[in-house]
Parts: sequence; structure tokens; C-alpha cells
Amino acid sequence: MNERVAVQDEVLAKLLEAVEAEGLDAVVPMSPENLAYASGAAPPSQKTVRSRLAAAIVPAGGTDTEVITVKLEAPLVRSQSRLDRVTAYEEFVQHPIDAIAASLRERGLGDARIGIETTYLTHADHERLCSELPGAELRPVDRIWSRLREVKTASETERIRHIGQAAQRITEECVALVSAGSSERELGNLITERYHQAGGDVLTMLVVASGERSAHLNAPPTGRVMEPGDVVRTDVIGTSGHYYSDVARTAIVGEPSAEQRRVYDLLLDVHHRCLDALRPGAISSAIYAIYHDAMEVAGLPAYHFVGHGLGVTLHEEPFINPLKSVPLEEGMVLCIEPLTTVEGQFGMQIEDEVLITADGCEALTEVGDILTVGA
Amino acid sequence: MNERVAVQDEVLAKLLEAVEAEGLDAVVPMSPENLAYASGAAPPSQKTVRSRLAAAIVPAGGTDTEVITVKLEAPLVRSQSRLDRVTAYEEFVQHPIDAIAASLRERGLGDARIGIETTYLTHADHERLCSELPGAELRPVDRIWSRLREVKTASETERIRHIGQAAQRITEECVALVSAGSSERELGNLITERYHQAGGDVLTMLVVASGERSAHLNAPPTGRVMEPGDVVRTDVIGTSGHYYSDVARTAIVGEPSAEQRRVYDLLLDVHHRCLDALRPGAISSAIYAIYHDAMEVAGLPAYHFVGHGLGVTLHEEPFINPLKSVPLEEGMVLCIEPLTTVEGQFGMQIEDEVLITADGCEALTEVGDILTVGA
Repeated sequence: MNERVAVQDEVLAKLLEAVEAEGLDAVVPMSPENLAYASGAAPPSQKTVRSRLAAAIVPAGGTDTEVITVKLEAPLVRSQSRLDRVTAYEEFVQHPIDAIAASLRERGLGDARIGIETTYLTHADHERLCSELPGAELRPVDRIWSRLREVKTASETERIRHIGQAAQRITEECVALVSAGSSERELGNLITERYHQAGGDVLTMLVVASGERSAHLNAPPTGRVMEPGDVVRTDVIGTSGHYYSDVARTAIVGEPSAEQRRVYDLLLDVHHRCLDALRPGAISSAIYAIYHDAMEVAGLPAYHFVGHGLGVTLHEEPFINPLKSVPLEEGMVLCIEPLTTVEGQFGMQIEDEVLITADGCEALTEVGDILTVGA
Repeated sequence: MNERVAVQDEVLAKLLEAVEAEGLDAVVPMSPENLAYASGAAPPSQKTVRSRLAAAIVPAGGTDTEVITVKLEAPLVRSQSRLDRVTAYEEFVQHPIDAIAASLRERGLGDARIGIETTYLTHADHERLCSELPGAELRPVDRIWSRLREVKTASETERIRHIGQAAQRITEECVALVSAGSSERELGNLITERYHQAGGDVLTMLVVASGERSAHLNAPPTGRVMEPGDVVRTDVIGTSGHYYSDVARTAIVGEPSAEQRRVYDLLLDVHHRCLDALRPGAISSAIYAIYHDAMEVAGLPAYHFVGHGLGVTLHEEPFINPLKSVPLEEGMVLCIEPLTTVEGQFGMQIEDEVLITADGCEALTEVGDILTVGA
């Protein structure tokens, strides 16, 4: 059984348990992340041409599971999905919501309890679904998806590990290949090329930010030329087979100044202290406090979170922030990312991916000393 | 005045006319395309972290226009947007809908007629906005945005021309640089690298599909090795400064067979006949019929449309399909893309971008003979 098949079988089993526990007759995932999570399907134009809505129907018991997608992408979706069948609708001729409603009615689920995602379904589509299925109870189940996805299956973890480790290796290699005088875009292009070679599908939000731009969060690479003394902050955010990588590193052009060294070493120390505190039962806000308190003592700005779940979305539960106190669980995959930015000056960040294990955590990626551009 | 500023000034003037004509007190674009169109703002994580909703508030008269975005991306958005101010909300602390509602109330627009996008706003967010602004009339204005965007301003056309011509040149160069034995991914990586060098921001849906995969619509590049006799279909779909490129080409590894030559020449003939028919007043369904009828005579499958508007979205009005009969207008930018796919065998496509002029059309990109891989 290949990895992709294993992921889908494991996830479908978890999903059917949740459907039964919630007393639902079916769930209809429509967001790209939950559709991919439940079915393996990722119709390419689902995000790019938003009117080409795609969905799955997973009935209680799991018999006759279905993906509904635009006709032109049905052959590709058939090759991606493990669900029992793929139904195609004709763009312009049939509205996707009508196709979904028709399938539910044919299954005798026209008056049933259907779990939908009200944080994805648009207001116009929700109105249309209500009018197509006037007897149905459309129940928001966004939290169920979020909760299901918090703890990863073994196969999911392997997929995340694979692309995460590639992201780390590629960053280290590419930072060494450029030099003072190279542009952010040259570094970004190198990372992009190798990410695809390593099996990455798309870099959804590649960050390459140098000099004072390193303080800009989520800043894409530009033509800015890297100069001696610059901080260069990278974050390799992309996907491979629906699963995200999110690995950030800090580099210097030339030798770090005493101040740069001080801030990096502080972040590295905080990073290790956060990692050392991770285990089942550890409370998310207490992990955040380790970071926040250290930054406060050092007189450096703290970010509003220091970590988050990682999976078929970039940011998912649990968030490691001061506002939520939830216990960590074995099987969660988290990013821990101490960061400090001084607007107009510099930003530094260290971000690794870890798996919560029975008695602590296991590094999926592992940071070392500050990187040097060109070395 | 640079191009980006010119686009925003021209668009804002058109938008304010529409707001007045519709009797609205304000419009609140929230989709990435309409936010970028109206304001120039493109917060990087708006698409990647969907809960980080961003919006603009454009009141009738155009005084005190505003972008509302997540705090961590506010500095970047300030550098992108021409609107009067940027307001930041704190992730986790304040819901973006509450920030939008608060600003509307502060402006005395709590009970006003507000134009919203119900085909973008989620059902959950719509419920929240209604409850925050119980006295407001939230009017769906999705069609107004779509209508406004159909006819491009001069500066918009220049931006589309620039990245479209780059997409064509890059395709021709990169197809020549690979050879039999190269993989789709190698070709895709070359295209990606040069697209970024040419100022492209992201390839949202790059297609490189060879052999029998060339029949798969929107198929991303894979490790498949290109072999003599293969058809290779490319489609360079991406954005530069919010504006899309969409240029498709067909290539052959080696010499085309008689059948490949016949199909390509037929598509090229149909393509030119469609282009010759484009002018203000030409009816969209009649353009489609030129393509459809020719394919029927040739015994080849026709696609369900042969063209579409191009701008801040990939597919927008007017669609050139059999179901809609709308007159073309000067200033529209269209993609014309005759395509035929025989599942399990091959797919061929020619796609150019054109501007509708006072008496015909002007090529923004221009196809030639079938391309040869490695030559």
C-alpha cells in the first residue's frame, strides 16, 4: 500500500467514527483542505476558479462515498481519490450546489442531517443549498474537521516529515549557493526549483526577506540585493500531496554582529526551551509564556503566537498563543517558531516541525547555528 | 506616475461611479481579486490562512477609503495600497468581521446600504456581519464587480500585456531548452524560474502535460519523461501584480505525425477565424459557434467554451460559450483558446490574449506554428 492510499484509509476510518458519534447522516466537505483530507481529491482549479466548487459526500457507514467535481477535471480527480465514485457536473450548465443536492436526494438524504462547513461555504451557496434541500438539517461541523485533523495518523506524519526535511535541506543548500550581491529573488528561485525537484507541488507562501525587509512578515522575495551585514529570513511554506511544510531560518550575509549574534542565540535558547516543554498534557498557553517571558526580559518584541498545528492547512489547531489553554496530545504535529521583528531594522525567526510523542516530542526538522549566506 | 498607481486611480474612479449609480453608501470588497482590484492590497496570507480575512471600505464619494487587514501584514499592505488608511486587527483577539463592522459604525454607516460579495463571504461571516450591523442593508453586489472588471483600463491592459508576452516568450524558450528524455517537471521548473525573473509573482496553475497526459485539463507537471512523438501541452497561468497571464501552447517531441499536424493546423485555422471575428458588438455565442462547428465537422471533441475574460481573475466575464449571447466591447481583454482532447491519447491547445479595439482586436500574444521540443 503506498503512502497516499494509507493516509486516505486511516483518515476515512477516523472520519466515519466522528460522523457516527455526531449522529450525522452524511458530511459534505467542500473546502480544499477537508476535501483533500477526506478524499485525496485536489481538483487543480478549485482554488484558482472559485466557481468550480468541489465536494465529497461521505455518508454514515461509509458506503458509496463520492467526489463531485467539474467535468473537465474529473479524469484527474479519479486518479487522485480513493472514494467510491467521482461525479462530474458541467460548468455553466449545472450549478455545483445543485449537483451536490441532487446526489443527496438520490441517496434518500434530502431530509437528513448533513454536516457542512459554514466557514467555507459562501453565503450565496448556503442559500442555494437550503432552497434545494428545504427539509434537510444543515449542521455546521467546522469544529469537527478541525478537531479530527489535530492528531495526525502515522502516514500523515510521514508525509509531513518528508517535505519538511526537504524544506530544511533546501534552505541550507540554497543559502550557501548565493552570496552578497545576489537578490532575494535569485535565492527564491533556487529554493523554488529544488522544492519542486524534491516533490513539492507549490510554494504557497515562500518568504525571502533581507535587510530591513526581514521585519516584514510573510514578505515574498523581491529584486532587493543582499548586502554584507544583512539579516536574511526565509520561510519555506508550500505543499506536497496536500501536506504543508513550514520551516523558517535566519541567515546573515557575512559575519553576524554582536547584536545579531545575541538575538539569534536568545531565539535559539527560547526555541530549545519550548521544545523541551512539549509533551502530552503540556498546556499550550504555558509554552507560549516561555517564549513571551524570555522576549520581555530581553526587551525584544514578541509575536502573538509561537506555534501552531501543521497539516493539510498551514495554520490549524492547536495554536500556541496566550489566549488558549489546551493540553497537547500524542500525535499532534506542531511548528514552533520563535520570532522577533524590529520594524525598520530586522526580523529573525527559527521554525521547526515536531511530533508530540508519548513522553515528549520528536524533531521532524532540526535547526542549528545561524546560517551564513554563501557558506 | 508608475503603472501600479495608474491602475489604482483609474479603477477607483470607475468604482465610485458604480457606487453612486447603484445608490450604495459603501462597498466592502473582501475577495482577494476585488480587494486587489479596488485597493492594490494583497495581504500574502489572505489565501493561505483563510481566517485572516481582509477587506476594503470604499464609501460613496471616495473620502477616507480604508483597508482592513491582519496586524502582522499591515506594514506590507501599507506599501501596496493607495487607499487613505490601513487598519489592523489582532489575530485571535478580534474577529475581522467585527473590525469591519466597527469601522462602518464609526463612519455612521451602521444602518447604511453596504455592497458585499455574497459569492465570497462565508455563511458564518455573513451571519456575524448581520448580527454586528442589524440595521444595515447588506446588498449583494457581486455582479457589479464582475461588470466593472469586464472592460479594462489602459493601465490594466499594459500590465496584462507585459506578463502575457513574458509567458509566451518563456514558453518558447523553455520548450527549446529541454529535449526527449527531459521530464515534465524539468520543463516546469525552467518555466517557473524564468517566470519569476520576468516579474511574475506566482504560477497559480502551471500546466505541463505530455503524451496521454496532454489530454488532462489543468494537469500540473510530473516526473513523466517526454518521449519522441509525444504531444506536450503547456499553459502558463500565473500572476504579476494581481494580473493574470494565460497562454497555452502545443509542442511535439520530434517531428509531428500527419495526424498531429492535421489537428494542430485545424486548431490554428479555427483560432485565426475566431480572432478575425472579434470586434465590438460581436456576439459571444457566435464566436463559440465558429470553434464548435469546425470541431464537429472535423470529428474532434469540442470544449465547453473557447474563451473568457482575463484580469485579476483567470476566468471572468465575458465567457465565450454557447450559453451566453453578449456583445463584446472595446477594452475587453479575452483569452481565445481552441482546445481538443482525446482521452487516453492526446490534447492540443492554442491560447492567446487579445484586446478588443474600436474595430477589431489587437494581439497581446501571438501564436505561430506548432513548437518543437529541443528546437
